[in-house]
Amino acid sequence: MTTTALTHLTQLVTNDPSLGEGPLGLIQDAAVVIDGDRIAWVGPSSKTPATDNAVDAGGRSALPGFVDSHSHLVFGGDRTQEFNARMSGRAYEAGGIRTTVAATRAATDEQLSANVAHYLAEALRQGTTTFETKSGYGLTVEDEARALRIAGEHTDEVTYLGAHIVSPDYADDPAGYVDLVTGPMLDACAPHARWIDVFCEKGAFDGDQARAILTAGKRRGLLPRIHANQLSYGPGVQLGVELDAASADHCTHLTDADVDALANSATVATLLPGAEFSTRATWPDARRLLDAGATVALSTDCNPGSSFTSSMPFCIALAVRDMRMTPDEAVWAATAGGARALRRDDVGRIAPGARADLTLLDAPSHVHLAYRPGVPLVSGVWRKGVRVA
Amino acid sequence: MTTTALTHLTQLVTNDPSLGEGPLGLIQDAAVVIDGDRIAWVGPSSKTPATDNAVDAGGRSALPGFVDSHSHLVFGGDRTQEFNARMSGRAYEAGGIRTTVAATRAATDEQLSANVAHYLAEALRQGTTTFETKSGYGLTVEDEARALRIAGEHTDEVTYLGAHIVSPDYADDPAGYVDLVTGPMLDACAPHARWIDVFCEKGAFDGDQARAILTAGKRRGLLPRIHANQLSYGPGVQLGVELDAASADHCTHLTDADVDALANSATVATLLPGAEFSTRATWPDARRLLDAGATVALSTDCNPGSSFTSSMPFCIALAVRDMRMTPDEAVWAATAGGARALRRDDVGRIAPGARADLTLLDAPSHVHLAYRPGVPLVSGVWRKGVRVA
Ligand SMILES: [Zn+2]
Ligand SMILES: [Zn+2]
Repeated sequence: MTTTALTHLTQLVTNDPSLGEGPLGLIQDAAVVIDGDRIAWVGPSSKTPATDNAVDAGGRSALPGFVDSHSHLVFGGDRTQEFNARMSGRAYEAGGIRTTVAATRAATDEQLSANVAHYLAEALRQGTTTFETKSGYGLTVEDEARALRIAGEHTDEVTYLGAHIVSPDYADDPAGYVDLVTGPMLDACAPHARWIDVFCEKGAFDGDQARAILTAGKRRGLLPRIHANQLSYGPGVQLGVELDAASADHCTHLTDADVDALANSATVATLLPGAEFSTRATWPDARRLLDAGATVALSTDCNPGSSFTSSMPFCIALAVRDMRMTPDEAVWAATAGGARALRRDDVGRIAPGARADLTLLDAPSHVHLAYRPGVPLVSGVWRKGVRVA
Repeated sequence: MTTTALTHLTQLVTNDPSLGEGPLGLIQDAAVVIDGDRIAWVGPSSKTPATDNAVDAGGRSALPGFVDSHSHLVFGGDRTQEFNARMSGRAYEAGGIRTTVAATRAATDEQLSANVAHYLAEALRQGTTTFETKSGYGLTVEDEARALRIAGEHTDEVTYLGAHIVSPDYADDPAGYVDLVTGPMLDACAPHARWIDVFCEKGAFDGDQARAILTAGKRRGLLPRIHANQLSYGPGVQLGVELDAASADHCTHLTDADVDALANSATVATLLPGAEFSTRATWPDARRLLDAGATVALSTDCNPGSSFTSSMPFCIALAVRDMRMTPDEAVWAATAGGARALRRDDVGRIAPGARADLTLLDAPSHVHLAYRPGVPLVSGVWRKGVRVA
């Protein structure tokens, strides 16, 4: 195996407090040694061990590759006209998720796969090295299984979201759709997914339906996560905690009991500020969750309807500006937090034994991700030890 | 001269209503021919005339290079710690502009020039092909003249802003500082600048001082522009209109009389949403200005204190989300609007005879600049006919 050293990093975020200062485990004037697909060593640049290759990162800083634990990338078409009309105050017959369902069903496998590849490459160039993505725009047995198969060509973190909305084909029989999602559709989808998810919300699935869906998935060996409390108060967060979901996602409308439940659980609160940005919605209160002791992750929610950003740096800037996270907390949430939300310990940190996923910034510290909003600062990306950008 | 055609653009923003649809002069499936440093032809891709070279832009769209008419790039140091403390709710002895003044005075010419080059290159990669930049962190005769000389190495649009704040050296004698700014400092600076500017605000320069400063500059052949009504109501906007300033910048706190004055003048209202984003301030009301008939430009205000973004796409996304501009209006304001704010007619449009400044997007239309916030969509940049990114 070849070893490579990155030296003279102005600063390194390790996310390992035993390796450096504070919760981010910060090391100034740092170096990292990569051996094959793993991190072999981190420490002060002056003590870098001998390696086969060396890259002088002079003036740049590094952090773990971003872990984007929530996206919806298996879709056809886009919704430019709907977005433009909404933002221009023009009337528009918005079909919402249904528009994307129709376009996704109509797309070929090749089109869907190329689309996923396009957005994942875009995210990779912006420093995202671990991606989760979901089905949820098929809503038939065949289309959901196809979406997961295609997602699996591109990432290991694949989530079955047959329960995104009640399929329009079952508009008059939502109970029948839940039976499908927990029966034949689950049978067809379980082999292709690691996770099961449900959109628990008024107009989508209520608490009882969500419990039935996640429980059926768990019985088939899928791990639960949940879209919870995005548009209104509801049972989603507490259901997620009860079922030991890895993550409750959105968490915009929370009671004190919801916050307590998250704080006293292994369920991560995953906040998705791109959605609030693009729909002009109320910001989730990250400060309240953090102060209560909950674990917070940040993710893009990348999808063509409500949050068409693939940029984790953008989410960090919003989290600091509008959700009252500190720059340190936001960077942790976008890396280590995302890893927790996927129950992974091999990513989201730069420490010996971890996967060699590393993002280089054309800036002296991680704080610049919030200090310099909108600026594409990512100037190098390593994934599994390979430089990919 | 060599001619080059860009063909199969999914869409082209010309900003020339005689060339295409609507105020943006949109052409679908378009082509552009560049001859030397000028645009020679635009039209439907199928009718592209013969050229020496051709670039197939298949699937991409194009618009005029962004015109960033307001930045402060001649500075030393940065203010990461101040930003981090503010956003983390920690006490910090913030020196504000004074911190940057001290660092700028201490920097060598080479350091300042390298800094300007760094940020302009960063902006260029994001599609900005015309840049204005200012002095204002020197505040002595020598340091202001030096800043303008250095700015002039990098751009033609150079603004003398000796009146950024009253120099700390004149804390007890603001009238003496105005005499310096309108006397020996103006003498030293006028040869190096096209514009004169003043920060008209409580704690900086009042209406009478601002009038004296801009009038003195005009007498020396400099064209006026003004920082007006950013932090509070004040006389700045109406003074700018009275003196035929090319632009009144910020325009956050406006009376009806201010809006009327702008609407009935050739003074552009330049809005700087990066500043409101980074300081969590009230958004300017672009809708009110546009509905009244004022001309609106968007710019970054790039500076290390209150708005450290160089990203025009980010400003467009904020303008749409938070200032109620439509995507079309925001794109016009960031291109043609910026050109108006600099009284230029050779940039900000793609039409025969215009300078060949063109930004290519990895997206089917300009709407995606707002629809896909934070995503670096710029995939090609031509400036004066030369591909630079
Ligand atoms: Zn989602
Ligand atoms: Zn300014």
